[in-house]
Amino acid sequence: MAGTDGGKERLRIGLIGCGFMGRAHSNAYNRVANFFDLPCVPHLTAVCSRNAERTRAFASTWGYESIETDWRAMVARDDIDAIDICVPNKFHCEIATSAAAAGKMVLCEKPLAMSAAEGEQMCQAVETAGVANMVWYNYRRVPAVTLAKQLIQEGKLGKIFHYRANFLQDWTIAEDLPQGGTALWRLDAAEAGSGVTGDLLAHCIDTALWLNGPMQDVTAMTETFVKQRVHQATGEVAPVNIDDACAFLCRFENGSLGVFESTRYARGHKALYTLEINGEHASLRWNLHDLHRLELFSHDDEGRLRGWRSIHVTDHDGSQPYMDKWWVPGLQIGYEHTFVHQVADFLEGLVTGQPAAPTFRDALATQRVCDAVLDSAASGRWTSLSQPSR
Amino acid sequence: MAGTDGGKERLRIGLIGCGFMGRAHSNAYNRVANFFDLPCVPHLTAVCSRNAERTRAFASTWGYESIETDWRAMVARDDIDAIDICVPNKFHCEIATSAAAAGKMVLCEKPLAMSAAEGEQMCQAVETAGVANMVWYNYRRVPAVTLAKQLIQEGKLGKIFHYRANFLQDWTIAEDLPQGGTALWRLDAAEAGSGVTGDLLAHCIDTALWLNGPMQDVTAMTETFVKQRVHQATGEVAPVNIDDACAFLCRFENGSLGVFESTRYARGHKALYTLEINGEHASLRWNLHDLHRLELFSHDDEGRLRGWRSIHVTDHDGSQPYMDKWWVPGLQIGYEHTFVHQVADFLEGLVTGQPAAPTFRDALATQRVCDAVLDSAASGRWTSLSQPSR
Amino acid sequence: MAGTDGGKERLRIGLIGCGFMGRAHSNAYNRVANFFDLPCVPHLTAVCSRNAERTRAFASTWGYESIETDWRAMVARDDIDAIDICVPNKFHCEIATSAAAAGKMVLCEKPLAMSAAEGEQMCQAVETAGVANMVWYNYRRVPAVTLAKQLIQEGKLGKIFHYRANFLQDWTIAEDLPQGGTALWRLDAAEAGSGVTGDLLAHCIDTALWLNGPMQDVTAMTETFVKQRVHQATGEVAPVNIDDACAFLCRFENGSLGVFESTRYARGHKALYTLEINGEHASLRWNLHDLHRLELFSHDDEGRLRGWRSIHVTDHDGSQPYMDKWWVPGLQIGYEHTFVHQVADFLEGLVTGQPAAPTFRDALATQRVCDAVLDSAASGRWTSLSQPSR
Amino acid sequence: MAGTDGGKERLRIGLIGCGFMGRAHSNAYNRVANFFDLPCVPHLTAVCSRNAERTRAFASTWGYESIETDWRAMVARDDIDAIDICVPNKFHCEIATSAAAAGKMVLCEKPLAMSAAEGEQMCQAVETAGVANMVWYNYRRVPAVTLAKQLIQEGKLGKIFHYRANFLQDWTIAEDLPQGGTALWRLDAAEAGSGVTGDLLAHCIDTALWLNGPMQDVTAMTETFVKQRVHQATGEVAPVNIDDACAFLCRFENGSLGVFESTRYARGHKALYTLEINGEHASLRWNLHDLHRLELFSHDDEGRLRGWRSIHVTDHDGSQPYMDKWWVPGLQIGYEHTFVHQVADFLEGLVTGQPAAPTFRDALATQRVCDAVLDSAASGRWTSLSQPSR
Repeated sequence: MAGTDGGKERLRIGLIGCGFMGRAHSNAYNRVANFFDLPCVPHLTAVCSRNAERTRAFASTWGYESIETDWRAMVARDDIDAIDICVPNKFHCEIATSAAAAGKMVLCEKPLAMSAAEGEQMCQAVETAGVANMVWYNYRRVPAVTLAKQLIQEGKLGKIFHYRANFLQDWTIAEDLPQGGTALWRLDAAEAGSGVTGDLLAHCIDTALWLNGPMQDVTAMTETFVKQRVHQATGEVAPVNIDDACAFLCRFENGSLGVFESTRYARGHKALYTLEINGEHASLRWNLHDLHRLELFSHDDEGRLRGWRSIHVTDHDGSQPYMDKWWVPGLQIGYEHTFVHQVADFLEGLVTGQPAAPTFRDALATQRVCDAVLDSAASGRWTSLSQPSR
Repeated sequence: MAGTDGGKERLRIGLIGCGFMGRAHSNAYNRVANFFDLPCVPHLTAVCSRNAERTRAFASTWGYESIETDWRAMVARDDIDAIDICVPNKFHCEIATSAAAAGKMVLCEKPLAMSAAEGEQMCQAVETAGVANMVWYNYRRVPAVTLAKQLIQEGKLGKIFHYRANFLQDWTIAEDLPQGGTALWRLDAAEAGSGVTGDLLAHCIDTALWLNGPMQDVTAMTETFVKQRVHQATGEVAPVNIDDACAFLCRFENGSLGVFESTRYARGHKALYTLEINGEHASLRWNLHDLHRLELFSHDDEGRLRGWRSIHVTDHDGSQPYMDKWWVPGLQIGYEHTFVHQVADFLEGLVTGQPAAPTFRDALATQRVCDAVLDSAASGRWTSLSQPSR
Repeated sequence: MAGTDGGKERLRIGLIGCGFMGRAHSNAYNRVANFFDLPCVPHLTAVCSRNAERTRAFASTWGYESIETDWRAMVARDDIDAIDICVPNKFHCEIATSAAAAGKMVLCEKPLAMSAAEGEQMCQAVETAGVANMVWYNYRRVPAVTLAKQLIQEGKLGKIFHYRANFLQDWTIAEDLPQGGTALWRLDAAEAGSGVTGDLLAHCIDTALWLNGPMQDVTAMTETFVKQRVHQATGEVAPVNIDDACAFLCRFENGSLGVFESTRYARGHKALYTLEINGEHASLRWNLHDLHRLELFSHDDEGRLRGWRSIHVTDHDGSQPYMDKWWVPGLQIGYEHTFVHQVADFLEGLVTGQPAAPTFRDALATQRVCDAVLDSAASGRWTSLSQPSR
Repeated sequence: MAGTDGGKERLRIGLIGCGFMGRAHSNAYNRVANFFDLPCVPHLTAVCSRNAERTRAFASTWGYESIETDWRAMVARDDIDAIDICVPNKFHCEIATSAAAAGKMVLCEKPLAMSAAEGEQMCQAVETAGVANMVWYNYRRVPAVTLAKQLIQEGKLGKIFHYRANFLQDWTIAEDLPQGGTALWRLDAAEAGSGVTGDLLAHCIDTALWLNGPMQDVTAMTETFVKQRVHQATGEVAPVNIDDACAFLCRFENGSLGVFESTRYARGHKALYTLEINGEHASLRWNLHDLHRLELFSHDDEGRLRGWRSIHVTDHDGSQPYMDKWWVPGLQIGYEHTFVHQVADFLEGLVTGQPAAPTFRDALATQRVCDAVLDSAASGRWTSLSQPSR
């Protein structure tokens, strides 16, 4: 880091990618200092994407000082401290390893990589270079989810019996939706690595590993409901090579059972990530469509009065994670704030030396589960996670 | 009471009225002994209504031993212990006073009477005769509502600040719905005394007086949205003389504020009776569309984990009112069970000598509030309840 | 059938078993004629269980004319038309086959049998004897669930992509809960055949096969969280031999994917049976804790106004299954009514000659899935259902 | 306006007040250009409050170029286009009229004034000066609320029968909470004009007038539950002179009935603003604790399938107000976004010449209702609104 901004150190950001995630991250960099009082602030030094005009417009909207159209040029600049990767998954590994080699910190969108093998390579690169690194599994920083983590860590749930999570969408049901290209690369395995497994289940798995510890083994099934779609790149009908839906069962090392499902064919659900965890003393439930609420059932409550409690996680007194930074009780925050929190924690980690999670290494564990899930779906067998799967 | 039924004393019932309420009460008489072990059981001795054929069919369906077509004949029979009045409100007073004079117990559908003046007459009749009496404000016996009462009595809520209740329906919006006659007497003030005030608000008021004590004064407004309808009796268009909607504000003697509203023009609500009570330490909420749930907010819960709790009032361990008589946890009961509970309590009251509430005298208090509400709506002034209103 | 009751033919019932299900069925027999106008009515001829005193008390409460203490004596009586089996699963096969051989109709509690092999034997017995037969998968007759069936049959959902169902309970978490004996035979595989698979998942599977058609194959896992418990029969600690939890993935023949889970270790859920089905044009959701509601998402609704709709299935106009028999709109029914509906349909089936479902043969399909699920959990492999599994 | 910012015209803001609302507005000014493509952008020229140190810190956090400690100096500056008033209500009138006289646009926090008389003066000031003006009734710009407005305007609800709104909080229940001073001026009528009426009910009234048109007359009650509190200014116990709670009934000019309630003593509710409107063809419901949802009941739906629909107002296709500016479907926004929307609309209004609502004149109508409500509560009489109340 170099230079100062209002007496604070600057973390000079080089963002690669101007899509949906580029916006979400840029917004977070811009907002964090308004709400979090940190010794270090992000500085929007450069943004990079292939189309110069589009990149310039993006830079103007979000306040980036300069643009690049070649990510290698960006990585080579010495006025940048951290590279933020917001491009399709197939570029993650090459950019991240190059950036690490150039001594840059690396922040990478999820999933970490196209495969665990790539992910391992990325981990080694950042660890060898000794650079700070983080993966944007942003849902850990929903205040309600962070609160869930605190309750579990405090032992409030006791022994865990069950974990279940779904991530349900419905935006690919129409058969005339094309695949591929800038907007729809998530439908092309060559760009994305997989379909819902890397896109949606990866979130569920990241949270699960964080809240409930490692998994032992999995059995999975996948399905591609629409078998062919026009490809944006060629204009021709091509086979669809991603998983439209994926479900798996697992056993966690703590003895609990897991059931996971994700799909883009669940009519009526826009982005319904739900999770529930059942423990001996209490259970917790959360969903992304009402992300400001945490549901809690406590067996410690008086018997006749036990029930699921809906906690509106908007208190301002410091008792609920992150919420003292925002508004007054009852006034909810939204999706974008999770990224602000993650930036804040990353910056704080730079100062304290306690790296913000999930690091690349943490995200590799998720990648390993994704790989095992896809392996199991292909083989029809339970796949073990006790040894690194590759 | 006389005779025995399986070694138990029999309460010989004479039911007057074969409509909706006649069915609900008959069902309760028939079911109570299957679920409640009481020293006394209802016996369906006779049912009375004007149409002999319809009455015979009703008797056959429900198991009444005999029929009458003139209520005076029913009241005169010496093989009947209790008269149950399920006919339009305009008949309540005359039948009840006659039945009491004949030494019968009297169970009367709500509202008690056409007016507080009539109600007072009815109270004097049963009290002079010394006969057991009860009014069918059945919602007191929803287990969730009874549980609310227990919590309030235990002081769990502390000082009460607010009470609010609505009873919302939408079945009279269509302008071509006729008024009057057997089916629609509730739309004719000559039969019903009032519109939603006596039909719906009366329930809200009964529960409120029970849970929160007496009211001091009220200010109200009423409205008749559809000004004329065909009358079933004459086939001619006639002015509508009932209140289609009624709302009022009140002050309770305990210092809390009340807001009440009822209507048959709230599109989307079939029979949505809702109530909420806010106290210093806790709040409670309930609604008739999910009558098996009680919602509780307890300020005693740990700060960061406070939230509204939805209690599924279906436990079988005796901790939740009435529920030990039914099924296993999680399996809900419905509307009709409230009548079974009320019969059980009435029978138990006969044995213990502790009359089941609400008695005629209790229901008179509700009638007084109804009258005051209608008076206030007519006069545009606050109306006091500190003295009997008439 | 023989004799008459109020001009109606009598179906003379011989009930075997006085437990929870004995009560639920007896209640249904007693209520059905109050609400359904059928040419044939149940008559409570005899009830049988081993303890004479207890059986006599049960007969007195519910109105059975006589008792038996040996089921063989019951089956041999010629004044009984139908045997209703409400005893632990291990007795189902022998009683049902004996009853069929004696020319009795047979109504059997679910699950049909200890295994598909037994189930096949039972099917052959009733089919050979040509006697009416039915299994009490009562949740098909929740009005909201029957309405779901109608919508699916009408094609309202279009192609189906996903089916998911859970049955979550929490009543066996306490480690000091014993197993076996009269009350807790469901915890003893020798009596019950399996744990949650036969008890809870069987319900989910029955509904799924009914709503979504046959399954192709399954992969499953089971767990026994508490490994040993005191056995009621011996007073000694013994291994627990049931599945405390079971989850499975499946493929349906219509190409949709299924995810199923059941457990008795989901803290906070008393009897939470939930199901959801996602189709091309619409999705449906239902749960047992609010059984009077059906949730519907219709993609045919105007885009900006699409949302999940909560249908309060309490209309009285004949448009919603069974509800025209009960009360007025907005007034919910409960768990026990599903049995009343099933009796009504059984009686109607006797008259029309269209057997009420599920028959033994229908229930055998569920049993086959249960067996395949347990086989898969034991073998760790996908198990096919395309051929009868045994 | 003068100067340019990235080729866009600048609206140079002078903000008065560094409290909660100062933050909310500053955030909106900072974010708007990231999400809305407008020809004019806010420029944070100066912020003013009495404490220089606190003001400087605020300016640094939010990016204001300069500070003032005397609002008159701010108003006198010629490098400021618009004055934004975020100070206690008692200063609104003087600042607004001075600013208007100095030719500044005026944006004023709600409620407009201490009284309708003051409000009238303010209206005349801005209208005489011909300066743009707006009051921050931000809840009009919750996308779900704006969507409700569209549906009503399109006639989707038909004739309106009922409007009901509550604003429930619980933060002043503790008797040892002091009154007055910087943080708690809302508890001091000398600073705030009134208690919940101006603070909370004003929001409900603004939305109601917007959605349902003018009111005819009101009857109200108020209560002060805690009669005295320590005053922050003096350190001494003083009488509490605000309304802790206020409820009123009203008639709208369109013939519908209104019921309104607000309080800071509703245990369990942080900031629960709820509204419901019942029309002939449809009903709408919304609440601030889940502000991203709109509930709709449409009688046009098929009878057996009618139900309340929960619309997750997060579509990105332009069909739902404002949401095309934000994220992807399913990802909710929060409280602060309403201010961003209001700034965007204000800026757009400057360009189009169509002033953004509510203007001072619009807000004066709300003030008149507040005054009438307080008058009615004091007099115990219905108060007419058909003539300006003063």
